[in-house]
Amino acid sequence: MSYTVGIVGVTGAVGGEVLKILEERNFPVKELRAFASARSEGMQVTFKGEKVTVHEATPEGFEGVDIVFFSAGGSTSKRLAPEEAKRGAVVVDKSSTWRMDPNVPLVIPEINPEDIATHQGIISSPNCSTIVMLMTIAPLHSVNPIKRIIVDTYQSASGAGGKGIVELMQQARDVLDGKQPTHDTFPHTLAFNALPHVENFGDDDYTTEELKMRDETRKILHQPNLPVSATCVRIPVPISHSEAVHIEFERPFSPDEARRVLAAAPGVIVQDDIRNKSYPLAMDAAGKDEIFVGRIRKDIALDNGLSIWSVGDNLRKGAATNAVQIAESLVTKGWL
Amino acid sequence: MSYTVGIVGVTGAVGGEVLKILEERNFPVKELRAFASARSEGMQVTFKGEKVTVHEATPEGFEGVDIVFFSAGGSTSKRLAPEEAKRGAVVVDKSSTWRMDPNVPLVIPEINPEDIATHQGIISSPNCSTIVMLMTIAPLHSVNPIKRIIVDTYQSASGAGGKGIVELMQQARDVLDGKQPTHDTFPHTLAFNALPHVENFGDDDYTTEELKMRDETRKILHQPNLPVSATCVRIPVPISHSEAVHIEFERPFSPDEARRVLAAAPGVIVQDDIRNKSYPLAMDAAGKDEIFVGRIRKDIALDNGLSIWSVGDNLRKGAATNAVQIAESLVTKGWL
Repeated sequence: MSYTVGIVGVTGAVGGEVLKILEERNFPVKELRAFASARSEGMQVTFKGEKVTVHEATPEGFEGVDIVFFSAGGSTSKRLAPEEAKRGAVVVDKSSTWRMDPNVPLVIPEINPEDIATHQGIISSPNCSTIVMLMTIAPLHSVNPIKRIIVDTYQSASGAGGKGIVELMQQARDVLDGKQPTHDTFPHTLAFNALPHVENFGDDDYTTEELKMRDETRKILHQPNLPVSATCVRIPVPISHSEAVHIEFERPFSPDEARRVLAAAPGVIVQDDIRNKSYPLAMDAAGKDEIFVGRIRKDIALDNGLSIWSVGDNLRKGAATNAVQIAESLVTKGWL
Repeated sequence: MSYTVGIVGVTGAVGGEVLKILEERNFPVKELRAFASARSEGMQVTFKGEKVTVHEATPEGFEGVDIVFFSAGGSTSKRLAPEEAKRGAVVVDKSSTWRMDPNVPLVIPEINPEDIATHQGIISSPNCSTIVMLMTIAPLHSVNPIKRIIVDTYQSASGAGGKGIVELMQQARDVLDGKQPTHDTFPHTLAFNALPHVENFGDDDYTTEELKMRDETRKILHQPNLPVSATCVRIPVPISHSEAVHIEFERPFSPDEARRVLAAAPGVIVQDDIRNKSYPLAMDAAGKDEIFVGRIRKDIALDNGLSIWSVGDNLRKGAATNAVQIAESLVTKGWL
């Protein structure tokens, strides 16, 4: 079996990664259709050595598509995803639009693949910062329930798309050259700075990014009241989110036991050899599909607590790889 | 009254700030003596428009000195500080050597000035990351006792001295120019990266920087068992440490009440107008003596919790300014 696959937002940072990853993982693609906004009409992308022309995403363009990856903005997903689902395609959506919809499963295939079965045409892939945290804490939760989470993030410029990387690098060059940097994508200069402001401000003076980490974690772990407090911070790194995670468990959890559990968890690499200065680093995780975890130690301010440093490529496992893995699950389970 | 003042480590990042700040704040200096390691012998620094020759720090060089600031390494403080104290000088030490000595007060003048009175010749100034956090939480603690603290830091390159800034900037230029960056001061490339490794690894797989935040907080607040869990992370910022602080209090603490308490706290500036994208930023805090605090909100994972973002210049209030303020307290209280 092979499938007609669409990518909406193929010219963006995450859409480009989806294209690459479908090829790398040899997803059974019969035909690839490339979509983007009207201003990219006629551009070309390359898939398995062949040129594919980009078309504006319209409901009609999706006739005959089996599966479609949405890596466009929320408004595009809101408008088009139900249209595609109506036409019989399964939508794997990377935007935040459908994530908290009770009729839409929110899936990390290593953690809650069974939720895929409940889909009604749309499946959501979580926020990048949620995925980087959950890949680390869900395997621990499955052997010793989590009671609360405090997390502070060190998020990369590419969380704001490819233009975020370009802006960071231009700002860095301006600062080094003694020029005044300008900003457009970010609310302030990001180069040589730390911005405690990712996305927009929402309820209770939390940012929407911080609230996503809380709400998506609750949905994926099926723990609707789990206390999760996040401070999301953008730092001058092009790719990969790093996170300092503090977790309270129901019972004591030794760092050694946590290392054993995580070493056996799919998609997770334990890198925790501090004597040799080996711990997860944003720069090393970039381009990788695994989530890297280290600095595992007892959290001395929480009961039965662990402190953990978790790092992953926000464009790959944090976005594109996870979406492609959802599609792979659909195929292998015969749900497509 | 005016005093003979010495600075040990005057050619370093913090020593240079002490020199500037003594002049800015018009500390009553009768004579300034500049000391550094043997390799700086004969260099000159400028104080109030006059050249002062740097000499190698030796016990004999301190005869007649009333007060001496140590901003050199720990081994220099260990060797020379008791010698100077014996000769009648009061030593204000910025190294970690004496901080946990029960006979040495550890002082932030806005918080525990009364501890200065117990000195026996040496007074310690806390670690920069401790000062940035305590300036924010001590005023809150004094109206509603703190029960536990979880903190994750975003620390600047200058925490490793002036050479840290130089290395960061060179690495950034190398990355932008497509060259392979090298590292010497930091354990890995810091530019465009995040290193969960500040100082050395110590007990229980915590770094010495993380343990300082715990132990110094306990000593300054006179709370010997306070649970404090820190993850200390170096990020590519030249000056200013930022910190995400999560605090549990004995009783409920509304964000509005916390803002009122902090607005009245000396040396603290509340910058918390998120609708106008106004919150503390490392880049803005650099060169300032105040600690900036914002993103004040209920911590949804702690009982009676607050989440706070605290930022300060690690070379100034985090080091030099605090040391000079200790000296000012000695003068105004007549303890010199």
